[in-house]
Amino acid sequence: MPFITVKVLEGKTPEQKRDLVKRMTAAVKESFDVDAEKVFIFFEDLKADDYGKQGELYSFQDENK
Amino acid sequence: MPFITVKVLEGKTPEQKRDLVKRMTAAVKESFDVDAEKVFIFFEDLKADDYGKQGELYSFQDENK
Amino acid sequence: MPFITVKVLEGKTPEQKRDLVKRMTAAVKESFDVDAEKVFIFFEDLKADDYGKQGELYSFQDENK
Amino acid sequence: MPFITVKVLEGKTPEQKRDLVKRMTAAVKESFDVDAEKVFIFFEDLKADDYGKQGELYSFQDENK
Amino acid sequence: MPFITVKVLEGKTPEQKRDLVKRMTAAVKESFDVDAEKVFIFFEDLKADDYGKQGELYSFQDENK
Amino acid sequence: MPFITVKVLEGKTPEQKRDLVKRMTAAVKESFDVDAEKVFIFFEDLKADDYGKQGELYSFQDENK
Repeated sequence: MPFITVKVLEGKTPEQKRDLVKRMTAAVKESFDVDAEKVFIFFEDLKADDYGKQGELYSFQDENK
Repeated sequence: MPFITVKVLEGKTPEQKRDLVKRMTAAVKESFDVDAEKVFIFFEDLKADDYGKQGELYSFQDENK
Repeated sequence: MPFITVKVLEGKTPEQKRDLVKRMTAAVKESFDVDAEKVFIFFEDLKADDYGKQGELYSFQDENK
Repeated sequence: MPFITVKVLEGKTPEQKRDLVKRMTAAVKESFDVDAEKVFIFFEDLKADDYGKQGELYSFQDENK
Repeated sequence: MPFITVKVLEGKTPEQKRDLVKRMTAAVKESFDVDAEKVFIFFEDLKADDYGKQGELYSFQDENK
Repeated sequence: MPFITVKVLEGKTPEQKRDLVKRMTAAVKESFDVDAEKVFIFFEDLKADDYGKQGELYSFQDENK
C-alpha cells in the first residue's frame, strides 16, 4: 500500500523510471507516513497511436508529427 | 475531463482509432456538455492470449482459431 | 468488446450517463464495425478531493471553490 | 460480470493463462453464484522495467538481475 | 505479484468477497506457481447506474428494473 | 501527461492527498522533465472489505481487526 500506476507516453528510459520510483516512494512515505517497502509502482507506456486529446489522435496532431 | 479508456482486441488501425477519437469526443461533448479539449482518450490493445471469457482463453476458442 | 471506462468528475445524472452510453455505443459500432451488444461501458465517478492537476488538488483550486 | 484484470510479470505462457482462466471462472462461479459465460478475464503483462517496489525498479533489484 | 482487480455489480457481501479471495489465491498459486503471500486482490463495486451494455445503462434495462 | 493513479486504503485526508499531489508533481517534473500543468493525478480509496492479500480479506486479518 499504496499501489501507484503511471501512464506515460513511451520513450522514457529505465533510468528515468528508476529515478521516478525513488522519488515517488519518498513522496508517498512523507505524505502518507507509510513504509517504503509497502509502495508498489507500475508503469504503462502509451504509444502515440493510443492516445487522443482535443478530438484528435496524438500521432496526427501537427505538433507531434 | 473526462478520461476515457478503450480496451479492444488488437488489430484496429490508427485511422480507426482516430475516427473513434473524433466520434467519442463529440459524444461526450453532447451528453456531458464539456469542451472537446478536456476529453482524453486512451487505447489499450488486447492480445488474443490476454483475454478470456466463458471459461476459455480467446485464442483457444474454436470460433477464433 | 470493446470495454470502455469513463472517469469523470462526480455530478453527472443517470440520464446523462444513459445518453452517453447510447452515443458511445453508436460511435464504436461505426468506427470499429462491432455489434452494439458487444460494447461494455463503465463509469467511475471522481470526487473533487480525488483529482489533482497542475500540482494542486482540484478541490483546492480557486476556480472550483 | 464480473470483469477481472490480472496484472503479472511477463513470461507466463498461454497455457498457464488458459489454466488460470478456467480456475478463476470456476472460483467466481462458486463464490458469487454467476454463470461462467458472464465472467471476463484480462491479462496485463508487466515488464521488469515497468514495475517498482521498495523504492527500486524491479529490473535493478539484486535478486532479479 | 500478481495484482488482481475484480469489478463486479455492487451487492456482494464481505463473506462472498472473502471466499473469492481464498479461491482466487489458490487458483493463481496453482496456475502460476507463486506464493500466496504475493497475491494481491482488489474489488471495485459497480453501481447499476455506472454500467452500460447493449447500448443501454444497466439500471434502465427491463430485466433489471 | 503523465496520468497517475494512486490506489490507497481509505482514511487519507484531503490535506494528505493535496500534499502528495504537490510532491508527486515535483517528482515527475524532475525525473521526466515535463511541465507541472501536464501532470494529472487520481486517487482511488480502497475499503478494508475490498482488499485482499495472503489469501485473506484485509478486514478479516488479525492485525487489522
